[in-house]
Amino acid sequence: LLTPDECDRLRVVLVATRNPLNLGAAARAMSNFGFHRLRVVNLYGLAFREARSAVGASQVLVDAQEYKTVAEAVADCTLVVGATAGRNREFQHPLRRLEAGARLIGAQLRSQAVAILFGSEKVGLSNRDLSCCHWLLRIPTREGHPSMNLGQAVAVCLYELARETEAEDAEPGAKPKAAIAADLERITAVLLETLRASGYLGAPPNTSAEEKVRRLVRRLDLSATDAEIWLGMLRQMAWKMGSGKKHD
Amino acid sequence: LLTPDECDRLRVVLVATRNPLNLGAAARAMSNFGFHRLRVVNLYGLAFREARSAVGASQVLVDAQEYKTVAEAVADCTLVVGATAGRNREFQHPLRRLEAGARLIGAQLRSQAVAILFGSEKVGLSNRDLSCCHWLLRIPTREGHPSMNLGQAVAVCLYELARETEAEDAEPGAKPKAAIAADLERITAVLLETLRASGYLGAPPNTSAEEKVRRLVRRLDLSATDAEIWLGMLRQMAWKMGSGKKHD
Repeated sequence: LLTPDECDRLRVVLVATRNPLNLGAAARAMSNFGFHRLRVVNLYGLAFREARSAVGASQVLVDAQEYKTVAEAVADCTLVVGATAGRNREFQHPLRRLEAGARLIGAQLRSQAVAILFGSEKVGLSNRDLSCCHWLLRIPTREGHPSMNLGQAVAVCLYELARETEAEDAEPGAKPKAAIAADLERITAVLLETLRASGYLGAPPNTSAEEKVRRLVRRLDLSATDAEIWLGMLRQMAWKMGSGKKHD
Repeated sequence: LLTPDECDRLRVVLVATRNPLNLGAAARAMSNFGFHRLRVVNLYGLAFREARSAVGASQVLVDAQEYKTVAEAVADCTLVVGATAGRNREFQHPLRRLEAGARLIGAQLRSQAVAILFGSEKVGLSNRDLSCCHWLLRIPTREGHPSMNLGQAVAVCLYELARETEAEDAEPGAKPKAAIAADLERITAVLLETLRASGYLGAPPNTSAEEKVRRLVRRLDLSATDAEIWLGMLRQMAWKMGSGKKHD
């Protein structure tokens, strides 16, 4: 996980974006994942002004900085990475899958500023833009349809940067407290009672059926709380059927 | 990495989506990452028709299936997961971060169908929708701005499913075939009937109690075989109590 300082060292650079909705979407994803340094280059001014003034525009967008050239926008960065759908012309650069690339970016962010460049919706990054990059980043989309929507591409890249790595997660699995065996046995007893009262099972002894029901209850993997609920429900049914029986 | 067959077992279910652009964006992300079974529930028909007829609408959107209810849309799935920004009301369900949740989904996809539900832009998934879920999935957004754009949320979830894991984990997965959602819904219905017949629950409608019971049944984590047994047992009890009632 990145620290706030590390997040602060990332610059998301949008180059020649045309659609104000995409500007807004990119800014929103940045805000969702804790990044806030948005830089825009060579924008169609109208798109930017529209996006900025849209209702609910995020603070990220309001604070965005405008640049005339990519070179100026990345001037303070020690690593510049271009996001690409991986078309042929771009293979003059090292091309890394996002999973691996994000780890390199994360390592750099520990002490230094990094820029990720996203090109325009239609043509991506120009050769001129690419020449400012140290290497290229490819989201692992499928070959038949590699090109992502700009806002979604930004979201996926930032998510990969913000996500927990395998080493970290080891989710403690906040599993609720499990039912103790005594509770399961009580449930089994009442369930057997209801099954007999309903005619599903014949009169005891019927050892094999009882064992089947006992195993069935164990397989439910009940929490302590749920066990109590089931016990209450089954008791009510047993009572109802028992009282029904009396009047047969 | 998921195989094409595994991708084919995932259903992306969009519930009550309002904005046609979001439908289009979700479909595009699916296509980017190799998923193609899109299901839409309770749509504002106009949004769907608009999105479908848009220039460049992806094949995924054209092939999307429409359903009236969430229950119908997930009927063939053995695991139903709700995507959420993690607001308080939803903590009645186990809540997993996307990183860990995606691995559970991936394991299930090896042999069985899984649905991921995405709610509407404004209000997310309703309690009724959530009660059809086994557990909830949370994209690790920051607390100050947790709610993502719908199309971006879909993209991030599918990316996490499609990405390479650090140690292509080797879960043996000798788990028995799980019950499909339609079976769980049948069990829920008969259980509600028995609970009413026994006096444990009052007469319907009692939405909150129904949702509690629906969640309770999902937490049982039933196999297909056990689901059949429980259904048989509960039907017998319902019949018994029903017939008892007649003679009251």
